[in-house]
Parts: sequence; C-alpha cells; structure tokens
Amino acid sequence: KYEIPVIGPNTHGFSNFHKDFHSIFWHFDTFPGEIAVISQSGGVGLTIACSLRTMMCGLSHFVGVGNGAVTGFSDYLQVINLDPNVRVFSLFVEGLENAREFYECARKITAKKPVVVYKAGKNEEVAKATLTHTGSLTGEYDLYRAMFKQAGLVEVDSAWDAAVASKALAMLNLPEGDRVCAMTFTAGLSIVAMDRSLDAGWKFPDISDHARQGIRSVIGEKTPVELQNPIDLTGLGFLPQNYSGVLEVLRDESFDAFFLVWSFNALIRIPIAEIEKFVKDVKKPVVMVLLANQYEAERYLEELARRRVCCYLTPEDGATALNALLRRYKMLNRDRKVSN
Amino acid sequence: KYEIPVIGPNTHGFSNFHKDFHSIFWHFDTFPGEIAVISQSGGVGLTIACSLRTMMCGLSHFVGVGNGAVTGFSDYLQVINLDPNVRVFSLFVEGLENAREFYECARKITAKKPVVVYKAGKNEEVAKATLTHTGSLTGEYDLYRAMFKQAGLVEVDSAWDAAVASKALAMLNLPEGDRVCAMTFTAGLSIVAMDRSLDAGWKFPDISDHARQGIRSVIGEKTPVELQNPIDLTGLGFLPQNYSGVLEVLRDESFDAFFLVWSFNALIRIPIAEIEKFVKDVKKPVVMVLLANQYEAERYLEELARRRVCCYLTPEDGATALNALLRRYKMLNRDRKVSN
Repeated sequence: KYEIPVIGPNTHGFSNFHKDFHSIFWHFDTFPGEIAVISQSGGVGLTIACSLRTMMCGLSHFVGVGNGAVTGFSDYLQVINLDPNVRVFSLFVEGLENAREFYECARKITAKKPVVVYKAGKNEEVAKATLTHTGSLTGEYDLYRAMFKQAGLVEVDSAWDAAVASKALAMLNLPEGDRVCAMTFTAGLSIVAMDRSLDAGWKFPDISDHARQGIRSVIGEKTPVELQNPIDLTGLGFLPQNYSGVLEVLRDESFDAFFLVWSFNALIRIPIAEIEKFVKDVKKPVVMVLLANQYEAERYLEELARRRVCCYLTPEDGATALNALLRRYKMLNRDRKVSN
Repeated sequence: KYEIPVIGPNTHGFSNFHKDFHSIFWHFDTFPGEIAVISQSGGVGLTIACSLRTMMCGLSHFVGVGNGAVTGFSDYLQVINLDPNVRVFSLFVEGLENAREFYECARKITAKKPVVVYKAGKNEEVAKATLTHTGSLTGEYDLYRAMFKQAGLVEVDSAWDAAVASKALAMLNLPEGDRVCAMTFTAGLSIVAMDRSLDAGWKFPDISDHARQGIRSVIGEKTPVELQNPIDLTGLGFLPQNYSGVLEVLRDESFDAFFLVWSFNALIRIPIAEIEKFVKDVKKPVVMVLLANQYEAERYLEELARRRVCCYLTPEDGATALNALLRRYKMLNRDRKVSN
C-alpha cells in the first residue's frame, strides 16, 4: 500500500555478516563467508547455518522470509545477488505464493551463481501444518520439483545436504565433464560413494596403463589388489609421500574431478599441504573425505578450509558434494547448448 | 579344513571394547558402549564408529568381516549375541555368500535385539568394484531388501543414518503405538520431521482440549499460533520453566512417543534436568533435537548422553531415529500377531 518493503511478518530477521548488520532476534555462531541462506523457516535456516558452521563454512547473509506479506524469495534473491561476497544461495522453501515470479528470478540467477534448494511438504498431510505456519500450501511437490530443475536449481533432501552442496559449490571449481577418479585406502568407502555418484551421472573410467605404471613406481609392484579406478592404495598409501606421489601421477590423467579419501590416525600425518598443492595445480574439483569423528577432525577441517580444500567426514557426503557439482555443470551445459 | 575359525582375510580386525581386547590394525577414538558394529568394509565400519562417537555413543564390538573365507556375518552375530553388553547390532553389508544362513540367524536375533543394516551396491555397476574387493556380488538389491525386511532388520541409507538409528535403538524404549507428539519453537523443523515420519507411518493426532487448556495455563492465553500437534510454543516456550511446565501437561496425554526441539542460545539455559526427568517419568521414547553446531553442542551432547537423553542436531536425524523405533515396534508386533 505504501510501497515500503517489509520483511516478514513472523520472521527470524535479516543479517549481513560482511557488514555486521543484524536485524534478527536469534544470534548464532557463524563468521563472514560466501553462502547466503534464505529460509522460509527460521528453524530450518538455522539448521542449515549450524550445519555449515560444523563444516567450517561461513555465511554472507541470513534471511528468515517468514510469511512474506510484502517481500518474497524473488526480492531477496535479486537484492542479495548484487553483493559480490555471495557465491552460493541456499534456500529452504515451504511453498511459493508466486511460483512464476520465483522461476523467472531464479532462472536469471542460476545462469551466474549456483542456487541450492531444499523443499518441505513432500507429504500432503504436512500441508495442513504448514498452512497454519506461513500460510502457504506445500502440495504439488512434483510440480515444484520440475520447476526447480527447469530453473537450474540444485535440489537436496535435507538441511545437512543443503550445507554439503552449498559448501562444495562455494569452494570448488566446476568439472568440465563427468569422469571422476577416486583414491582410497579402503574400497568400501568408494563403493558407497560410487553407488550414489553413478546414479547421478558420474563415470569412473579406468586409469591408463601409463598411470598404472606410474602408481606402481611410487607404491611398489606388489599391490594386494588390482589397480583400477577407484584406486585402492591399501596400507601402501599411508606414507604421506606415497599419497602425494600418486597424486602427482594422476595430475595429468584425463579426469574431470577427484575424490580423495584419508583416514585420521594420531600417528600418521595428514598430507594437507600436498593435497592443497594438488587442488591448486589441477584446477579441477577435488572432494576430500577424512574419516574421523567431528571433534578430532575440528582442527584439520579448520586448516583445510583455510587452504580451500573442500573436506567432509563421510563418503556419502562426499558423493552428495560431487553430485551437486555435476548437476550444476550439466545445467550450465544445457543452457549453453540451448543458446548456441 | 582344520575347523579353526579365522577372521578375514583382508579384514580390519576384531575389538571387544568392554574387555579391552583388540586384534585390529587401526585404532580409533571410541569408548565402551552398547553397539556392536560388524562391517564387510573396515572403512565403512569406521565411518559408522566415528559417526557414533560424534553422537556420543560407544561400541561394544567392532568387526571387520573382510573376505570372510571361513567366518561370516552369522558367526559374528551368534557369538557377539551372547554378550549382555550388546543392545544393538549395526551392520554394513556388501553382499552375502550364504543369504539363507544369514536370514535364519538374523531372524532369531531380531526377536530379541534390534539389528540395523546398511547395504552397499544398490547400483549394478558397483558390483564390479565390489567383486575385486571382498569377492561378493552386490546385485539383486531388491531381493536383499525384501530379505532384510522379512528378517526384521532396520535398513538405513548411509553410514551416518546407521549411527542415528543404532543410537536411538540402544538408548530408547520402544513405542507401543504410532502416535507421536512434537513440541517445537519453530514450525519449520516439525514440518521437515513430519515429512519423513508420516511416510514411515507415524501419526500426529491432535492434542486434547484438556491439554490445550493446560498448555495455555503455562504459557498464557495469547499464543501467536494455533495450539495443535506439532505444538509450536513460539518464544513463550523459551523460559525453561515454561518448557518443562508444558512437558508436565503432556505427560499423561495418550501419545506413544515425543519429539522435543530446543535451540541453543548462549543466554538461555537448556532445561536438561527437566527433560531427563520427563524421559524417566513417561517411560516412552523421547527424541530430542538440539539446534546447534557440533562444536558448541559437544558438552551438552555429553551431558545428555550421560543422563540417557537421546539427542540429535537436525530434525531429519530426529525423524530417522523415530522411524527406526517405529519399524522395530511394528516388526515385533507383526511377529506377536503371527505367533498368536
């Protein structure tokens, strides 16, 4: 009526962490970063923010959309998109009043920046509960899903996965194809990661004879398992110089992405500097998985984040990260083909 | 040939944490607890163990089955089942040589103790990679799935979820029905939890007029949202005495399980003692969700675990926990009906 933009009502508020501006009623632990969380629920937005903090990722903005009487997702997306600090948007959507407007706006943004979306209300019975909350209907999930895909969004299935995907998209270069190389000490981890990443379209082409020879020259001829992709270094890889030696061999192999596993042990140094160098050299996405519990991993996750190495603690999270990158690559590629 | 049980080959080893007996080549951070992890992959078993440690759960045993030349899952299950320290089995299965033997053995154990299973190799292409690892085929996932269900196992989709489900089944009483009551400050969290738990068969029946009146007498008449289940206390619930006052009202309502949300804030005390008392009084499963990042949550998770309050950091994990309990209840109920 008066053309004044109003946030909410029934909202968590708005924060810009780079400007240290906060119009918010609930403070939480984070630091300035590259991810803007825009959430229709303060609580779910908070869960994404806390999950990102656990993964050592900061935020650029936090918005609780609330009932969105005047301003909606499109308004926030457009305004925050002007801020060069933002590399990724991470959205939680219950339902949209104006899906067409959202679609047009999101479509423009995803051409430049990745947008991750987590949608509530897949179950129709939940619609009733949502209606009393923000007054929006959550039904017709399939329509939403198709719209998200068409608009180039990366959809995920939980607040944690929203954080996993946002972290990868903020920290990593995109692949320029679908060929991934996995390197591990224990095949089981690559099996569960492959399960998920093959379904998403990643391929695990075999390594070349040249690479096989190169790896043998580093870890020796007598490997207890066959050398193939996923590359299982077994115990022989647990010397940091062997690990980085094999990375050196793989550098020029024709893969589009790498999935590296390390397992924390108090007696063996994690080759952090070597992995950092590899990431910088290959200029391709490298997802690292460190097997450790969250508390013993904390200082390593901190150091890895500082060196811009993207690391997770489970192989399934690593696969979710890889899959987000591939979906983003395919989306941009689809658009490029369309415009040619 | 010589009838000597052999573990492995190609195995991570065997540990009994209550006896401090370790025949294992990789030490990791844990403490004696109630969960036995039996994994065909040392790496995935380690991921489950690390995830449990992050959730403040200890282990009774850890077994790397490896190639299982002589001993297999059934042997470990039977032997470890004799140990009264074990409350829950948590399995990672790539493929089974003798599925019939496994089925018969698991069926007997699940009549007494919960068994959680995570299966690899859902994608047929992964079978090749698995074959070079432990020599077992991973195909025919649908057959496995039906067999697990028939044997009364609780199947999960990731190492993390195996830890989430195992923790709940180790710490909580089983429900005696499917009616759950959710209490939250922010509806979004209950919406995403409902999404998952409705699909799994939980019902969220409305609270009685009597309970509604009781809650109003605690938090006041003027609530900004309608009082229904999920119960959204909004800001009014953030006084610990209000929170525990409402729990007191709900105690005698006819629910079979409770889903309680708290959000960490440095300025407001978490009503830990009050929640502990509620859990002891109701003798029903109570799943708590604490919104916080893993590092700030550490000391609270430790205290909650000591007081045997089962807590997670995301609503989706809370729903996974609830769903594991309901599946276990339904399985035991099915068997009871069959035997009558």
